[in-house]
Amino acid sequence: MNAKIQALVESIQPVDRSIETDIIDHLNDLTKPPGSLGKLEQLVTQFCLASQSSQPKIGKKIIFTFAGDHGVAAEGVSAFPQEVTPQMVANIAMGGAAVNVLGKHAGAEIRVIDMGVAVPVEFPGVIQKKIKAGTDNMAQGPAMSVEEAEKALWVGIELAQAAKEEGALLIGTGEMGIANTTPSSALFAALLPCEVEEITGRGTGINDEVLKHKIGVIKKSLKVNASSLSNPLEALAAVGGLEIAGICGLILGAAACKLPLVVDGFISSAAALVACKLNPSVEDYLFFSHKSQEAGHQTFLNKFGVEPILDLQMRLGEGTGAALAMTLIDASIKIYNEMATFSSAGVSKE
Amino acid sequence: MNAKIQALVESIQPVDRSIETDIIDHLNDLTKPPGSLGKLEQLVTQFCLASQSSQPKIGKKIIFTFAGDHGVAAEGVSAFPQEVTPQMVANIAMGGAAVNVLGKHAGAEIRVIDMGVAVPVEFPGVIQKKIKAGTDNMAQGPAMSVEEAEKALWVGIELAQAAKEEGALLIGTGEMGIANTTPSSALFAALLPCEVEEITGRGTGINDEVLKHKIGVIKKSLKVNASSLSNPLEALAAVGGLEIAGICGLILGAAACKLPLVVDGFISSAAALVACKLNPSVEDYLFFSHKSQEAGHQTFLNKFGVEPILDLQMRLGEGTGAALAMTLIDASIKIYNEMATFSSAGVSKE
Repeated sequence: MNAKIQALVESIQPVDRSIETDIIDHLNDLTKPPGSLGKLEQLVTQFCLASQSSQPKIGKKIIFTFAGDHGVAAEGVSAFPQEVTPQMVANIAMGGAAVNVLGKHAGAEIRVIDMGVAVPVEFPGVIQKKIKAGTDNMAQGPAMSVEEAEKALWVGIELAQAAKEEGALLIGTGEMGIANTTPSSALFAALLPCEVEEITGRGTGINDEVLKHKIGVIKKSLKVNASSLSNPLEALAAVGGLEIAGICGLILGAAACKLPLVVDGFISSAAALVACKLNPSVEDYLFFSHKSQEAGHQTFLNKFGVEPILDLQMRLGEGTGAALAMTLIDASIKIYNEMATFSSAGVSKE
Repeated sequence: MNAKIQALVESIQPVDRSIETDIIDHLNDLTKPPGSLGKLEQLVTQFCLASQSSQPKIGKKIIFTFAGDHGVAAEGVSAFPQEVTPQMVANIAMGGAAVNVLGKHAGAEIRVIDMGVAVPVEFPGVIQKKIKAGTDNMAQGPAMSVEEAEKALWVGIELAQAAKEEGALLIGTGEMGIANTTPSSALFAALLPCEVEEITGRGTGINDEVLKHKIGVIKKSLKVNASSLSNPLEALAAVGGLEIAGICGLILGAAACKLPLVVDGFISSAAALVACKLNPSVEDYLFFSHKSQEAGHQTFLNKFGVEPILDLQMRLGEGTGAALAMTLIDASIKIYNEMATFSSAGVSKE
C-alpha cells in the first residue's frame, strides 16, 4: 500500500465514547418511555459519537454515486448490456434516476463520478475521475493493478475530505455499473469469507441458468486470482471494481475525518467490508442503510454482524437506500433536538 | 349496531383494480429494473388504488392522535400512572411530543382528540370529544356500553370525512392512553383470535412480575365479558377503549370515502382489526406503518397476514410510526411522478 493511503488508514480511530452517557441521559429525559423510539435513539447516538458532538445538527448531505464498468460483463453475468452504465450516468447527471428523486426527498445532493466507465461520459455534472475504461476481466486475471486500485481509493478519500471541508455533516455512497454485483460477491467470498453460492444473487434480474453461470464465473475469478486474496487491498484490485474502490476510499476518508457515512446496499457493503478489513475502527462511522433484496446481502449482514436501518426489498443501488436512510437519521436528530423534556412539559416520569 | 354506522360500514367497497395494470406499466417504464424499488413500488400502487387514481399526488396529511383513559389501569397493569395521559395530551397540544416532531418531519399536521381522558383536558388545540371520563374496569364488566362505543366510532368517522372534505390525501392514526396495550391485547385475543400469552407485551416497560399479572387481568376481562366477544362491535365495547374506538371509526370513515390511511402500531392495529372484522374491504385502504417492539404485534402481523413498512423497534405509539411511514409513502409517490422513463432518458431496457 502506498505511504499516503497507509498513513490515512492508520489515522482512523475508534469513536471516543466518553460523551455517550450524556447523549443517553438526554434521550432518557425526553417525554417518552426510555428506549421507546428504538432504532431512532440508536441512530442519533451513533451520529453523535461519529461526529464527536452531543449537539447533533442536520446540515449539508451529499450522496456520491460512483460509476464504473467491468471486464467480467463479457462473461454474460448481467441482465442488462454494458451500454446501460453510461446511459444511467447521463440519467443521474440529468436528474432523472431514482437516486435523484430520493436524494431530493432526503435533502441530499447527488454527485456522480466516472471512476471507470468503458466509454467517455463527459456530460455536464459528471465528475471526471476515470482511472481506466472499465476493469479487465477478472475471470482471466486481476481486474486492475494495485496501483490503479490505490488511485481509485484516493479519489474517494479526497471526495470525503472535500465534503467535510465544504461543511457536509452526513454523506452517503452509491454506485452504477453493469455487472457490479459479480465483483462484489467475489469480494465478499474472499474477505468475509463465505461460499460463493451463499453470497451470489440475481443482480438486476437474471434467471436460474444465468445465476448458475455467474456463480461459476465468480469461482473461476477467485481461482485465477487466488494469490491476491489474503490482503484486502490486493483482493480489491484483483476481484473488485473501480467504483467499488472509489466507495471504499470515500468510506476511509469519511472515517478519517469523523464524517458519518451511510452505506447504500450490496455493492457499497462490499466496499465497506474492504475498508473495515483495512481498519476495523471504520465501522464506528458507518450506517448500513438497508437490507438489499440481492440474495447474498443477508449473508453479509449476518456474518459481519450489522443490522441495517431499513428493509424495503430494494435492489437498485445508485444510493437509493442511503437516501432513504438519511431521512431516518434526520428524524432521529430532530427527536433529540426538538422534543420536550419531562421537566419542561410537566410530565410524570414514573 | 345503529343504522347510521351500519350503512357506512356496508358502503365500504373493495378497491377497483382496473387501473392496476396502468400503474404497474408506468412503474416498469421508469429507468430501473422492474420491481427493483421493492416496497416503494407496492406503496405507490396501493396508494393509487386506495385513492382511485393513477396520478397520485402528495398533499395535506393529518395524523389523528386519540386519547383516552382505562378503568383497567386500576389493576396495576402499566409502568406509568394514569396522570400521564392528560400530561401527554397537553404535551402533544403544545407540540413537544415525539409525534409532533416526527409529524413535522413528515409534513403532517397532528390533531389530538380527547375521547375519554379521566380528567378535563381543555387545553387549546385539544379537540373535545369526550364520551366519558375513562372506560370502566373491564376486569369487572364491560369497559363501556355499545352505545358509547358507537358514539366514539362516529367521532372518528366524522373526523375522516372532514379530513377528506378539507382536502387531506393521506391520514394516519395515533393514540395516547396509559394502560391501553391491555385492552388492545384483549381485543386481539378475542378477535384474531389468539392466546393471551402470545399477544401481551410489556407496554411502556413493565417487569416480568407485572407482565404475568397483566396477562391474568386480560384473561379475567375476557372471562367476565365472554358473552360479548363473538361480535366485533360488542367486543370493542366490552374490552376496548374510547381512543381505540375513535381510531376504529377513523379507519372506517377513511375507507368509506377512499382516503388512504396509515395505521400506527400495536394499539392502532387492534382498532384496525375491529374495523376489518366489520368489513374486510377496509384493509384495501390501510398501510400498516411499522412492526412495534410490543411483543404481541408480530403475532397480529403473522395471523392477520400483513407486512409492515418499517421495523425500527419502536414502542411509543402516539402516531410516531404512522408519521415515519408517511415519509416513505411520499417517497414512493415522488418516484412514480418524478423519475425519467426509459424512452425519455435514452436508456436501453434490456
